Amino acid sequence: MRDAYHEELDALTIKLVEMTRLVRSAISRATTALLDADLELAESVISRDAEVDRIFAEVEASIFELMARQQPVAVDLRMIITALRMGTDLERMGDLAQHVAKVARLRHPDSAIPPELRATILEMGQIAERLVTKTGSCIASRDVETALELEHDDDAMDKLHRKLFRVLMAPDWKHGVEPAIDVTLIGRYYERYADHAVRVARDVVYLVTGSRPHGDANASLLGG
Amino acid sequence: MRDAYHEELDALTIKLVEMTRLVRSAISRATTALLDADLELAESVISRDAEVDRIFAEVEASIFELMARQQPVAVDLRMIITALRMGTDLERMGDLAQHVAKVARLRHPDSAIPPELRATILEMGQIAERLVTKTGSCIASRDVETALELEHDDDAMDKLHRKLFRVLMAPDWKHGVEPAIDVTLIGRYYERYADHAVRVARDVVYLVTGSRPHGDANASLLGG
Repeated sequence: MRDAYHEELDALTIKLVEMTRLVRSAISRATTALLDADLELAESVISRDAEVDRIFAEVEASIFELMARQQPVAVDLRMIITALRMGTDLERMGDLAQHVAKVARLRHPDSAIPPELRATILEMGQIAERLVTKTGSCIASRDVETALELEHDDDAMDKLHRKLFRVLMAPDWKHGVEPAIDVTLIGRYYERYADHAVRVARDVVYLVTGSRPHGDANASLLGG
Repeated sequence: MRDAYHEELDALTIKLVEMTRLVRSAISRATTALLDADLELAESVISRDAEVDRIFAEVEASIFELMARQQPVAVDLRMIITALRMGTDLERMGDLAQHVAKVARLRHPDSAIPPELRATILEMGQIAERLVTKTGSCIASRDVETALELEHDDDAMDKLHRKLFRVLMAPDWKHGVEPAIDVTLIGRYYERYADHAVRVARDVVYLVTGSRPHGDANASLLGG
């Protein structure tokens, strides 16, 4: 049997996994709202971000309480501080999905995405979903191997991000400046979303192994 | 006389202030590199970001050590966790200054900024510097009043950011898509830089008063 303290740590993990579920749904719906110019769906992403914020507030509150009451050391301390970092990243991912939805809303009833970029944006959305789904499963299962896989998925995202710019800057781009600005910002939102997902996965690796994944050149003790 | 423990807390504060100094210098030099198309200056911003990362790693290491060794509670605990958040934001500000410098480097020997936007970008750079300078002085002096001033400076940044988009989307924009993309990204970097500076200042208010600044609608217990 686990004691009350470890039950609280488990509850923390469950909340972080719930956050991955919510921000996955948010980026999925934001991508569809963008491609379908679906105002209602965009609005739902925007309003439901409050749910992510609420869970994050709970995560913070219980971390603070755990630290004050239990004075954790060593592994537990690492777990708790890392949970705080994870929550911060996941909360930011919710914001980024919301930003995508806001562009969809701004351009409604038009779609912000020109036809020749729809497939690329769809794929970026799908990679984002895949990344955060894997991140959730890493948090739940402490699975280092899956966490390391995320780096490759993120490479695919970076490749698509570069492709966006190539299309935007090609001489045959005929949509002018406004859609180019929209696509530039949207591309940045997906890329940042993916970066945060990878950071969370790296935190799982750090939690389990006590050291940072290989190739994570900028990582400091806790940061990615 | 202060004990060793509180001396360590003071050392932490000094390091955070040093980070504000470095990222202020970085955004200042990045702005000049951008406006003057100065490759050498851009390179210096890019390479010196490692210094910010190094100090942040020290901040993290000493926080971790303090927590493990001293098991702080109440106010000290709040101080230490908030310092970790501040460090994370400041480290990110260094990255954003580096992003600006990278655009300058990419477009060298041209300037990425068309003539009619130079004054706006200069002003965004100046506001960014003012924000982070005030942030540094807030951290050093625990000055809540100055911290609250930052919100207004940030409003000025948002106004300039919207102005950028108006110029980019105006019918008489004649520079085409590539400079529009550069300006879109650069505008986003300055705006995010300012947001992080405001977050740090809000953390100072939280540290001193125990509650979040008025109007900080998204604030949860620790997060902004």
